[in-house]
Amino acid sequence: MRFARFVHAGGVSFGIVEGEAQSGLTIAEIDSIPFQNVRPTGNRWALADVRLLAPIFSSKVIGIGRNYADHAAELGNELPKEPLIFIKPSTSVIGPNDAIRIPSVAKQVEHEAELAVVIGASGARRVDRAGAQKAIFGYTVGNDVTARDLQRSDPQWTRAKGFDSFCPLGPWIETDLDVSDLEVRCEVGRNPDAMEVRQLGRTKDMVFDVPTLVSYVSHVMTLLPGDVILTGTPAGVSQIVSGETVSVSVQGIGELRNPVVSLD
Amino acid sequence: MRFARFVHAGGVSFGIVEGEAQSGLTIAEIDSIPFQNVRPTGNRWALADVRLLAPIFSSKVIGIGRNYADHAAELGNELPKEPLIFIKPSTSVIGPNDAIRIPSVAKQVEHEAELAVVIGASGARRVDRAGAQKAIFGYTVGNDVTARDLQRSDPQWTRAKGFDSFCPLGPWIETDLDVSDLEVRCEVGRNPDAMEVRQLGRTKDMVFDVPTLVSYVSHVMTLLPGDVILTGTPAGVSQIVSGETVSVSVQGIGELRNPVVSLD
Repeated sequence: MRFARFVHAGGVSFGIVEGEAQSGLTIAEIDSIPFQNVRPTGNRWALADVRLLAPIFSSKVIGIGRNYADHAAELGNELPKEPLIFIKPSTSVIGPNDAIRIPSVAKQVEHEAELAVVIGASGARRVDRAGAQKAIFGYTVGNDVTARDLQRSDPQWTRAKGFDSFCPLGPWIETDLDVSDLEVRCEVGRNPDAMEVRQLGRTKDMVFDVPTLVSYVSHVMTLLPGDVILTGTPAGVSQIVSGETVSVSVQGIGELRNPVVSLD
Repeated sequence: MRFARFVHAGGVSFGIVEGEAQSGLTIAEIDSIPFQNVRPTGNRWALADVRLLAPIFSSKVIGIGRNYADHAAELGNELPKEPLIFIKPSTSVIGPNDAIRIPSVAKQVEHEAELAVVIGASGARRVDRAGAQKAIFGYTVGNDVTARDLQRSDPQWTRAKGFDSFCPLGPWIETDLDVSDLEVRCEVGRNPDAMEVRQLGRTKDMVFDVPTLVSYVSHVMTLLPGDVILTGTPAGVSQIVSGETVSVSVQGIGELRNPVVSLD
């Protein structure tokens, strides 16, 4: 199932996205956060008539560095022997169609298309690979926006990856998905009808797979319900500038689009 | 005023700590989180009869690296030209007397005694130094516990500084304090009556002062109410092991004690 969080005339709700073609999608409101048994309220909208938000509240977003060999190589890095983890603050999260806002201090901001793991109601603390699989609620699409110049010049990546709006998530959470071999794609352009493919990878090429990542992180820090793990990006990262739109999509989940603007 | 969060027979409350001598301190319960106008409920306990918690919920804790020249030198680092920021997750926070739990993967865990800044109800987004001062609710004591071996071997500090229990905060928030020149002290020992002084610094020796730090961080990420900035540690960091107790104190605030245990 596809769970989304959205704004409608009456406020903010969670809902189940139904239908197949983009034109015919509808959203059926549910009565609570979608971790446990939920009931439909009976309200339903055309997806085009609501505004989607980031699909979940996260206390933290954990990023994984250098988890695709081709991307590690393009930045001149060796492959890590253990998952390379970093934190993006909750304040960096935005939803579909929200603007990525580039501060003037960042001179080279780049997209990083990623499969995003969403932790479910049980959370996860020091779980093994089997426990990790049970702790996963579903998957969404993420863009680990990074100021490459500041990532290179700062001793830590916190600033380069932590600016407000540098973590688009969405459009919804897909709960029924085998993520072992999915296409991860990023397109960029000024014209929505003529976007250029910049990244095109497959999740089977991850250095550390999803259960390994969840287990590893859970041995460092307790994962709370709604926490997100960004699983790393394939090769092809490139600069995005004001006026462009970034589209990130993961096969079987959907597409996450965000315009880029200058903050100051 | 000194605001604490505590557990008593009836549950968890916020309260105002009153009295001067350690023996005579009492805590007067208040009716809400202490950011705005609060009213006493009329309930009062001897401080010794309640269990203090970390004094606030934080969506994130921002650490500052190398913010005292003597500490940067003892680790062989140059002074940063801008504040060096990193994130400790909310799951790393513990309160007074809670155990610092050392996982077996961390071979050299060290204390870092720090003045901690607590952001108030307005939060802070891209504020200048004057705005930063207004955004500060008060100050508490922090211990930026760090696995020095993993800090050296990992590409990022996230794991070394992010383990559950690696961010003791407390014992309370002092709202009326000039923090420009306060003693920051750390003592370690197995016998509470014979602790050894390990760190002894003064906040006047910070490379970047408190308003500068808050302003800088707020230009990267929005600071939410209750967020904490750890302002860096003076020289003298040293290993702590199971069976010891760490005491961190900041002049004018109070003392934060935590036992150390092995997690596995």
